[in-house]
Amino acid sequence: MTHGTTIEDDAIPGAAVTTLSGVDLRLDNGSVLPDISIAWRAYGQMNKDKSNVVLICHALTGDHHPSGDNPLTGKEGWWSRVVGPGKPIDTDRYYVICQNVIGGCAGSSGPATQKPDGRVYGLDFPVITIGDMVRAQNLLLDHLGIKDLFCVIGGSMGAMQTIQWAAAHGERVFAAVPIAGSARHSSQNIAFHEVGRQAILADPNWHGGTYHDQDEHPRKGLAVARMAAHITYLSEAALQRKFGRNLQDREKVSYGFDADFQIESYLRHQGVTFVERFDANSYLYITRAMDYFDIAADHGGILADAFVGTATRFCVMSFTSDWLFPSSESIALVRALNAAGANVSFVEIESDKGHDAFLLDEPEMVSTLSGFLEAAAKARGLAPNGDTDAEAAHD
Amino acid sequence: MTHGTTIEDDAIPGAAVTTLSGVDLRLDNGSVLPDISIAWRAYGQMNKDKSNVVLICHALTGDHHPSGDNPLTGKEGWWSRVVGPGKPIDTDRYYVICQNVIGGCAGSSGPATQKPDGRVYGLDFPVITIGDMVRAQNLLLDHLGIKDLFCVIGGSMGAMQTIQWAAAHGERVFAAVPIAGSARHSSQNIAFHEVGRQAILADPNWHGGTYHDQDEHPRKGLAVARMAAHITYLSEAALQRKFGRNLQDREKVSYGFDADFQIESYLRHQGVTFVERFDANSYLYITRAMDYFDIAADHGGILADAFVGTATRFCVMSFTSDWLFPSSESIALVRALNAAGANVSFVEIESDKGHDAFLLDEPEMVSTLSGFLEAAAKARGLAPNGDTDAEAAHD
Repeated sequence: MTHGTTIEDDAIPGAAVTTLSGVDLRLDNGSVLPDISIAWRAYGQMNKDKSNVVLICHALTGDHHPSGDNPLTGKEGWWSRVVGPGKPIDTDRYYVICQNVIGGCAGSSGPATQKPDGRVYGLDFPVITIGDMVRAQNLLLDHLGIKDLFCVIGGSMGAMQTIQWAAAHGERVFAAVPIAGSARHSSQNIAFHEVGRQAILADPNWHGGTYHDQDEHPRKGLAVARMAAHITYLSEAALQRKFGRNLQDREKVSYGFDADFQIESYLRHQGVTFVERFDANSYLYITRAMDYFDIAADHGGILADAFVGTATRFCVMSFTSDWLFPSSESIALVRALNAAGANVSFVEIESDKGHDAFLLDEPEMVSTLSGFLEAAAKARGLAPNGDTDAEAAHD
Repeated sequence: MTHGTTIEDDAIPGAAVTTLSGVDLRLDNGSVLPDISIAWRAYGQMNKDKSNVVLICHALTGDHHPSGDNPLTGKEGWWSRVVGPGKPIDTDRYYVICQNVIGGCAGSSGPATQKPDGRVYGLDFPVITIGDMVRAQNLLLDHLGIKDLFCVIGGSMGAMQTIQWAAAHGERVFAAVPIAGSARHSSQNIAFHEVGRQAILADPNWHGGTYHDQDEHPRKGLAVARMAAHITYLSEAALQRKFGRNLQDREKVSYGFDADFQIESYLRHQGVTFVERFDANSYLYITRAMDYFDIAADHGGILADAFVGTATRFCVMSFTSDWLFPSSESIALVRALNAAGANVSFVEIESDKGHDAFLLDEPEMVSTLSGFLEAAAKARGLAPNGDTDAEAAHD
């Protein structure tokens, strides 16, 4: 029996932090993290038999606010295009949950939260994996009495979690939609993450990870990490179309090191705003979790073996101009799912927006998602109002 | 009339530093740099009418030692595969010159050299352009009494200089071979350079560029800059083939931030060794020069107009897996050259090695280069021993 203390955020309906007191999270590194807290947010209504639950998994720098006002960014939730009443992930039909990953810095247990002794974890926080993140998500669902999920869905690192859900907890997953993802982190992916981590570690304000005790933060290092990463989220074509070689607020170059070009100004802005909302140690931990992700390695090198006998129905999507998680990675996943006899559909979406396309206006992604969820809902027996057909007939 | 003081390096035959006393280098920023020094190296013999001179232009972090022992790296010259007796750039046939670019740190005037007052320039060095680099190269050739070049050749930033030579000093260039280059720096290129610069500027040891006076160097920042750049020099396929997800000296991951993966260890090594041989301010200046490069912008936005009436014969090469200077950039150059009625051949070489392919074992590049130079030498009337045919007949 688990015990939980949930603190609801009155300002944000549906948002809460739940501490799972007395519950152990067993980590891949062999240690145990007790009494974890998970920040989460829910939208819509659960039906009577709890069969309309959609879990949204967020990306590296995301949070548990995919829709509605996001107090962490002061903007709309990061997937408001897709999540909401009448939208593809229809909160009038589904009970939609999003959890901040452990290791993160939006309220869940992570290096920026406190140890039992009241001090900030810093590098005393255990190094976690995508598997650990998903195991933590399972614990919250247990606590909420949710036995299974109608759908797990996410882009980028959210896709990794989605794939992990299907591979390790497939019996709880009716449908899975990994978008712009991969079943492993590639060498180039690890390389870019390592650059970001070294930028943080090079900042003297990082103080070996103890900066929370020093009241200084490795802002410059984290900004450089963000700048480097941000380039990888966009395609070369998108950068050329959006910024090209346009100058920023000037008619000719300065012959200096100011942000002469719009792309420079844009990147600097990305760096500066990011450090306002993100913890540098969390950046280390979450990038590391992604680096370690390799589903095939957990199954003797055979990716298909991760999905043998799966009853989950999959919809895999990738974008043609995504060079960080290229279509080839999604195709490798689809081939493995086919080899395992899974029910899988795959759409490679023509887009010049790069990896971040999953967050942007991509009509084909929206229509694919809508169509897949509609068919899955029918197969699940979910009426348009989110009740089961049996309930709907009874009403 | 120019005056020059040349100091030869006894340990490296053919290597010298020439100071062009009393000569003004007029810069694109409107200022004048007097008395520049240029470090250079020559191989082979000039023929009597000085018609067998090949100028090799180096890349961002290159130097004037393309062949033979390189005292700066302790290795062979960076293009020893291609430059030497009997090699495609045959030092038995051609008089081969390579100059360290101004702004560089291998002996030519740059931010790490001394001002007239004896202090190190640092950020007092003027911001220079590819055009300025090439203008400086012209001044050394004037000093050496070399009126024109049989061939100008270079990869990456060397290709930019080659294109600049043909566009701005075409009357001195018989043949030009830009490899893995571009007539402009793209938005994504600028973005990656800006990340590198911000990594250097974020290092407190940079001291606003005055670190030479402080006896400290922004080693960590420069290493991060190098790491980020190095990823862009390789293709994703090459990284996956060479390193994949292989672990470094361990059988399982450490659940920490050590270099668990070979790719991490490799990148860290690239960063650490680079700071031993390169000046951080030079890195700022040279990346900036590349950012500013845009030949079309100098000609009303019409690239072809840069080459109207050119008599130079071109051989343009690109590599299929080069995503930093993709083939599309070379193709844009070739189209402009065609529009200008130039004599141009273009080869896109199938390679999975990425941008650095021009430095590596690429047989098709070698055979293309050999064939082009052979035909150009014939057209130039150069005998196999480097004499003119007229001289050869006379002997």
